Amino acid sequence: MSATATTNVAERSAMDRLLAPRSIALIGASNTAYRIGGLLFANLKRAFDGPLYPIHPSDKEIMGVTAYPSISDVPHEVDLAVVAVAAKMAPDVVEEAAAKGVGGVVVVTSGFAEVGGEGQALQDRLAEISRRTGIRIIGPNCIGYLNMHNGVMANFAIDPSNPLPSVGGTALVSQSGGFGSYISLMAMRAGLGVGWFVSTGNEVDCNVAMVSRYLIERPEVKVLLVCIETLRNPEIFIETAERALELDKPVVLLKAGRSEEAARAAMSHTGSITGSTDVLYAVCRQYGVHIAETMQDMLDLGLMFETGKRAKGKRMAVLTTSGGAGVLLTDEAAEVGLTVPEFSEKVQAELEAIMPQPFFGSVGNPIDTTSQIVAHQDAAVGIMEYLGKCPEIDMISCVTWDHTKDYVRALIDGDLGTDKPVSILCTATVPEVSEAGTPLYLDPARAVRPLGALARQSLDKPAVVRAPAKDEARIARARALFAACGGRKVLMEHEGKQLFAEYGIPVTREKLVATPEEADAAAAGIGGKVAIKYMSPELMHKSDVGGLRLGLEAGGVKAEADAMLEDVARGAPHVALSGILVQEMVPARMELTCGIKRDLSFGPIVVVGMGGVLVEVLAEVAMLRPPFDAGMARKVVESLCDGRIASARRGLEPAEVDAVVAAVMGLGQMALELPEISEIDVNPIRIANGRAVAADALVILEGAEGGEHH
Amino acid sequence: MSATATTNVAERSAMDRLLAPRSIALIGASNTAYRIGGLLFANLKRAFDGPLYPIHPSDKEIMGVTAYPSISDVPHEVDLAVVAVAAKMAPDVVEEAAAKGVGGVVVVTSGFAEVGGEGQALQDRLAEISRRTGIRIIGPNCIGYLNMHNGVMANFAIDPSNPLPSVGGTALVSQSGGFGSYISLMAMRAGLGVGWFVSTGNEVDCNVAMVSRYLIERPEVKVLLVCIETLRNPEIFIETAERALELDKPVVLLKAGRSEEAARAAMSHTGSITGSTDVLYAVCRQYGVHIAETMQDMLDLGLMFETGKRAKGKRMAVLTTSGGAGVLLTDEAAEVGLTVPEFSEKVQAELEAIMPQPFFGSVGNPIDTTSQIVAHQDAAVGIMEYLGKCPEIDMISCVTWDHTKDYVRALIDGDLGTDKPVSILCTATVPEVSEAGTPLYLDPARAVRPLGALARQSLDKPAVVRAPAKDEARIARARALFAACGGRKVLMEHEGKQLFAEYGIPVTREKLVATPEEADAAAAGIGGKVAIKYMSPELMHKSDVGGLRLGLEAGGVKAEADAMLEDVARGAPHVALSGILVQEMVPARMELTCGIKRDLSFGPIVVVGMGGVLVEVLAEVAMLRPPFDAGMARKVVESLCDGRIASARRGLEPAEVDAVVAAVMGLGQMALELPEISEIDVNPIRIANGRAVAADALVILEGAEGGEHH
Repeated sequence: MSATATTNVAERSAMDRLLAPRSIALIGASNTAYRIGGLLFANLKRAFDGPLYPIHPSDKEIMGVTAYPSISDVPHEVDLAVVAVAAKMAPDVVEEAAAKGVGGVVVVTSGFAEVGGEGQALQDRLAEISRRTGIRIIGPNCIGYLNMHNGVMANFAIDPSNPLPSVGGTALVSQSGGFGSYISLMAMRAGLGVGWFVSTGNEVDCNVAMVSRYLIERPEVKVLLVCIETLRNPEIFIETAERALELDKPVVLLKAGRSEEAARAAMSHTGSITGSTDVLYAVCRQYGVHIAETMQDMLDLGLMFETGKRAKGKRMAVLTTSGGAGVLLTDEAAEVGLTVPEFSEKVQAELEAIMPQPFFGSVGNPIDTTSQIVAHQDAAVGIMEYLGKCPEIDMISCVTWDHTKDYVRALIDGDLGTDKPVSILCTATVPEVSEAGTPLYLDPARAVRPLGALARQSLDKPAVVRAPAKDEARIARARALFAACGGRKVLMEHEGKQLFAEYGIPVTREKLVATPEEADAAAAGIGGKVAIKYMSPELMHKSDVGGLRLGLEAGGVKAEADAMLEDVARGAPHVALSGILVQEMVPARMELTCGIKRDLSFGPIVVVGMGGVLVEVLAEVAMLRPPFDAGMARKVVESLCDGRIASARRGLEPAEVDAVVAAVMGLGQMALELPEISEIDVNPIRIANGRAVAADALVILEGAEGGEHH
Repeated sequence: MSATATTNVAERSAMDRLLAPRSIALIGASNTAYRIGGLLFANLKRAFDGPLYPIHPSDKEIMGVTAYPSISDVPHEVDLAVVAVAAKMAPDVVEEAAAKGVGGVVVVTSGFAEVGGEGQALQDRLAEISRRTGIRIIGPNCIGYLNMHNGVMANFAIDPSNPLPSVGGTALVSQSGGFGSYISLMAMRAGLGVGWFVSTGNEVDCNVAMVSRYLIERPEVKVLLVCIETLRNPEIFIETAERALELDKPVVLLKAGRSEEAARAAMSHTGSITGSTDVLYAVCRQYGVHIAETMQDMLDLGLMFETGKRAKGKRMAVLTTSGGAGVLLTDEAAEVGLTVPEFSEKVQAELEAIMPQPFFGSVGNPIDTTSQIVAHQDAAVGIMEYLGKCPEIDMISCVTWDHTKDYVRALIDGDLGTDKPVSILCTATVPEVSEAGTPLYLDPARAVRPLGALARQSLDKPAVVRAPAKDEARIARARALFAACGGRKVLMEHEGKQLFAEYGIPVTREKLVATPEEADAAAAGIGGKVAIKYMSPELMHKSDVGGLRLGLEAGGVKAEADAMLEDVARGAPHVALSGILVQEMVPARMELTCGIKRDLSFGPIVVVGMGGVLVEVLAEVAMLRPPFDAGMARKVVESLCDGRIASARRGLEPAEVDAVVAAVMGLGQMALELPEISEIDVNPIRIANGRAVAADALVILEGAEGGEHH
């Protein structure tokens, strides 16, 4: 029983009453078994041990239970009302339920926003009722939910003749009802204990994020699987992910609608716009949410997480009867960041002593027992016991055939006898393995990838980062700078650089001067070669009109500056000079780009990527949602190019990494402190000789007109 | 019956006698059912309708068949002898078989090279016998083979109590016996018709490539699945791939031992060194061999290819009862290069007319019928018939549940009624679907990826390229150039550039001069800014001793050249000047690298990749094995950065692509014409303003000492 079981209605949240009800009405119940109202009632009846109130306009009983003509006629409190009446009647029915004090409704009916027109109007009415009365709504256009922990089968996709789902620790939330049922069926068949399945449908009130936030707090929920097309309430999704980190409950996300065509498909059947999948995935990585590549991957990870085991390290033992399969498992380990270390001589000797003799296999890791092991049960048991305790590895991946029952038993017992994660690669599913809860997979990649995810959950969980205190003095200085721009929404380069300097972003040495003479003096002060740039908010394409001169040295700057002023006066006569920017020329072995962009879902996102002019060719970027700490920023910067950015020859040196991290941190603070910033593009960051400096700056404030700013 | 059936022994190849025998002996046959000699004989006996000769030292009969004490005692011709005696007896037995005129032997025994020492010596004896007598050998240390087309079950991994494999069109070749059996069992369970399975084991004679070459010519073989760890005879593998292209038979390769750790594992159990997987994969792409990412992927592709269907285009229809599943299928289509185009209004109207009314789904593509379709068999049949003929799509991916039998039947019939490829995503395997041969998968990614592979097989098959005639005059000029280097194996930059110019590789404008005065004149001739470089075969790191000056202009070159000579004389006094290279400075928006490297397996490989100094950070390279044509070179160049290199903003312009393709073609010709070239590194190719020119050149001839050349 849940912790809420002893409290009364007034003390229980509407979400509790909706999702863990103590009394349930079904509006639109039917005695016809194959109708939705019949399927639903049969399911409710077989699972729920609290009071059930079927509502039917004329029938006195539904499947032997006293029926009422309307929800208002029910003479008792009702926590949950499931609504299975035609779309056009649904709003009135929900209104009536709200008036009666029902906690929440599940509207399974279709014919709302997904059909447009009148359907949209009906859905808008549901939304209005929920807002006004506080009644919680799941749906419409969903297939309901099931909560086996409280015996609630408010779901019509599972046929009442099928066995009841198990009271397991996995919760599945899916926007799509049909696909949610599909995946929940696949999950049950894969041996997952899906104790919760909620389909949220059109999400007029409750959405995937809200339901996820509710479920993550439920003590019986150990693993949360989330299928989405559109993520509504992204801030609640992040809050849920943070709670999941604190509670060490794995969350696995499957996103449908990644491609443009798929997004169009998603829009056409949910009527909603999908956000940027790249940003969503980056947020998932930042907050420790596991991303499922496919439906199968989601189930594979769920099966491993359901064991509740954690890994103490990333060293995997491979135990195989076939050398070839062992090699494939080792390949996959490398793919997901695990190692298959060769055993020490001591361990090899100890393993060899357990093996049946004479032994023609290998004990180096992979341990190739050859198929002779199958006839030596003691050895099989002994090896698993040994590996279960062996300090040189942290997890075990085993290969077997489904017909070698005794050997499979040895693997199961080995799994049950150790706290190390174990996965089995097998030629077919084996009921005994499913019952024991040992994750079994039919493909080498699938047998290893979940171990990799478990290692991440165990060892690489990010810390929850709270937003740092705002530096009000800095904010004031930044706003003074914006004010000095006099309503201009696009900052000039030197203004942007001033802002960057406030936030610790390394910039080129430079000086804004008024005259060619001052430019020469400034060049002397800066030293080395300089560039001069004609600064004017009206001049977007300097180089087209001669407003940019490179590679000058003090002494020669004045003449070039004079020439530049003349050229611009000729080429762009309407433009007023704000100043001449004299700037050091910085060498670059490598160029990066960073900045802030606004995501439709997640708001300001800090982006860092490879390339200056080649940023779109390389398309290698990492993203972070503020707030984040320096450790996270470093990890993300160093993750570029699969980690080669800092590890490969001619990659970033430590001091250069520090400088890029400083830039990323500064952008993160800026995004939090200055919400009026709409977009920042620092391109390029020029990197060489231990320095990484912003060589250009584009800062756009909110309210700027769209379009090309370069 | 094969084409060889009516020819006599003398006319039949040893490979035919080995793999499609008309008479079989089993040396080491046993009446004990569970021994390998018993399992093998039971399998041979139940499948083969030709003469069988069990060999046993004392038993007169094996399982009711007359036995002989030795192979020499068999009074008839023997095509194939299966050898299942202890390793130390095997060489004598094979010698005896050769003396008798047996066509080939399969040695299943273990205890050879894989155990080292004495085992290696035994294996060396087998190799020697094969070379000397011409007897073909499969194994040792293998599990034999099966050829259901000729009733040969020379395999002990399949239990004689199991049903016989089907006489299907799929052939599987695997180096690893254990894993080969594993995957062949999985294949049979997945519904593949594995009519051939050959395990090659230690490959003392026949290897995966040789067996593949044999199988691809067999008319009954429609699909070839190849599992390897080490590829021996790579040239035969390529020959096979080319024949497969000509015959339009798909070949799917699964490589074990991709990671370093996995390569170590592979070495430990096969005693062989694995080559570069990157090169192998590049060769596969070049020759149209499909690369399986996982074991499951291999089977998934095999199932699709077994249909024998081909696609006329890449436009996929998605037919789904669940919007969410449709979106996932659409996502996967984009991943594998397929499209899910929105239907025209005409098609949408025609589809809608077939749907059960009222219709709440979508006909845009994905076609979301909603689950109501399941109750309307006529509509289901009608939709599949319509899609089978619809000119707006080329293939169909369907979603269903395994319990909706009628709907599944409609899908099967739809598949059988159209030549368009069809795949089914389902919640479980369905026997009727397997029987019909319609590919069915349990995951959206798996349901779409094979359609992508089929589209590649149908539409993107590379042409077989023959080596062009050699340009003997050019070869002579190149060799004269090498000779002029006087035995030096590392060419100086200007020498390398002369070679490049011979082969049409665009290079910087440059001139080698003897004196500072000439350098100034050369700079005037070249025009614009120049670099000067101190050329000497002894000077590896010019810039360390001032042997490189950049950004000079005519007039100022002499003084800088004087200074350079002085600096080098001071910094590297032992070095003799070969000349001063005066070279145009070329701007670069982008830098590429290309060259020739030697692969252990495939010999000279042309490489082209992103980045000059960043080549190792970016690690984005494409490779081609010569010969290749300009179309292939262009395709490979344009494939860099997922195709963004030529399509993204600031990517390669058409003229720049042409120049890079010219460089790649030149390198390919050089590799074919000048086998004495050991390695070429053109880094960087500087690219801007429509030009792409080699700005440096490293050419190493065979016989050069190893180590760092830069």
